[in-house]
Amino acid sequence: MNDLIETVAITGGTHGNELTGVHLVKHWLSQPDEVKRDSFSTELHLANHKAIEEVRRYIDQDLNRQFNLQELGNPALTGYEQQRAKSLNEILGPKEKPRVDFIIDMHTTTANMGMSLVFNSNAPLLVGMAFYIKQKMPNANLFYNPANRLEDNFLTSLGRLNGFLIEVGPIAQGLLNYEVYSDTREAVLHALDYLEKTNTGQQINLPKQMTGYQFIQKIPLPTNPEGEIIGMVHPDLQDKDYRVIEPGDPLFVNLAGETIAYEGESAVYGAFINEAAYYDQKIGLSFMKEIDIFLEDE
Amino acid sequence: MNDLIETVAITGGTHGNELTGVHLVKHWLSQPDEVKRDSFSTELHLANHKAIEEVRRYIDQDLNRQFNLQELGNPALTGYEQQRAKSLNEILGPKEKPRVDFIIDMHTTTANMGMSLVFNSNAPLLVGMAFYIKQKMPNANLFYNPANRLEDNFLTSLGRLNGFLIEVGPIAQGLLNYEVYSDTREAVLHALDYLEKTNTGQQINLPKQMTGYQFIQKIPLPTNPEGEIIGMVHPDLQDKDYRVIEPGDPLFVNLAGETIAYEGESAVYGAFINEAAYYDQKIGLSFMKEIDIFLEDE
Repeated sequence: MNDLIETVAITGGTHGNELTGVHLVKHWLSQPDEVKRDSFSTELHLANHKAIEEVRRYIDQDLNRQFNLQELGNPALTGYEQQRAKSLNEILGPKEKPRVDFIIDMHTTTANMGMSLVFNSNAPLLVGMAFYIKQKMPNANLFYNPANRLEDNFLTSLGRLNGFLIEVGPIAQGLLNYEVYSDTREAVLHALDYLEKTNTGQQINLPKQMTGYQFIQKIPLPTNPEGEIIGMVHPDLQDKDYRVIEPGDPLFVNLAGETIAYEGESAVYGAFINEAAYYDQKIGLSFMKEIDIFLEDE
Repeated sequence: MNDLIETVAITGGTHGNELTGVHLVKHWLSQPDEVKRDSFSTELHLANHKAIEEVRRYIDQDLNRQFNLQELGNPALTGYEQQRAKSLNEILGPKEKPRVDFIIDMHTTTANMGMSLVFNSNAPLLVGMAFYIKQKMPNANLFYNPANRLEDNFLTSLGRLNGFLIEVGPIAQGLLNYEVYSDTREAVLHALDYLEKTNTGQQINLPKQMTGYQFIQKIPLPTNPEGEIIGMVHPDLQDKDYRVIEPGDPLFVNLAGETIAYEGESAVYGAFINEAAYYDQKIGLSFMKEIDIFLEDE
């Protein structure tokens, strides 16, 4: 079911040190015509004010892990981002019956993931948006991360018809880079065009199938018994996001320079390779599998 | 005068989110033979514990701007890093008559500055170290930033014979990258070898002159009347550290995509181009001049 879209929210600064989205929101607030479309209204929101102010990913906890329906309703969760998630749920939601129809959330990564289009449902609206943007930006990567909308903890899941996360890298935290900024801007404008076309019943020629990647699991960095990080991503793996990792391929190198290989039995793909934001959890990369993604008929 | 060196200190984590130096200090604490030399003792220090713990550049103020003699003696300065500078002055100094002879401080940058060897005096000991490392690592850049040792605000200036700052990039904050880690490790080991050779009177064949860069001034990012950043480094300038910038060349691009050119009358060189740590001061890059650096006879 792809009923009418009346309101779209574009969000930036969900992570306060990802400046690209923050500055795109500010740019569009000053030049709103760029994100205006005839068939729906577009709202612009900075998601995590205090973290933006302090140029930190978060103050108390990762905001983009707080939108599970159960946790939104738990009054015991009083950390800054837990409170901010409840405010956003009031502003954009409520999650069970959201006011906003669709949310586009802008992120960056220190990993060499290029333009990554992250969507958590195989609903035709989302798959079609991914395919549409990839037609316009062929280097984009489709990152499928299935989750039940009400249980999903991403900000995008507050949207009535769900939402779409645009993740661009590599870029350091706390930094602007024009290539990353303009690619993100372009992808968001394509997303709005796509919503305008579906909303007004325009014909869009999209393939029935494209190749993408689905999350399998996070892989920890090497640590000692005290839990301290004692290794890092191997130079042969650095910047090789979305490339195949075969059994025996190097994953990490320890502080002394010794290689630690992948000991799994089947090939995987890497993503979020050496993402700075995951060092607090001592995560080195995500393993992904390559998948065929199908655009179902509505 | 190049009198005997008895004690060398290697410091990391002066900026708490520059993980390379932190992990090299940890590595050498577990494998001290690598930094041991016969003619002097080597000490290892993490400089900014609380900022390392929080993976932030600093808690209250930039530690590497607190070592001016006058400020070290000012009891009114009680911020965390101001206190930490006073502690380091007790541990390594005191600045007027330091216990430690030489300090090697390890840093990283988000700018594409490769291996940059930063020294604040043209004393033959420092210039010789820079030339020696550049002979071994020809891509290294010599970054000369003259300052009177007692007035200098760098941690390295606590050393009796001054010190040497090794700055490697590009790398995001809060991240390890094996290439950056191993280049930094190699440069520090060359520095120790050089001190060992000078200390024991060994012949070192060094050129009399090499080309380097001297700091001129910091260049602000475009801001609006409210002081908000409304532009970023131009894509043609991004990653072009130590390359010439001619009058009329693009410097910045604003949020709408319009170019802002360099309006000076003579050519300059860029460094610290798009350094994330300088966004709090809204600095886009440093202008440098190309200079001949001479190794004087002692």
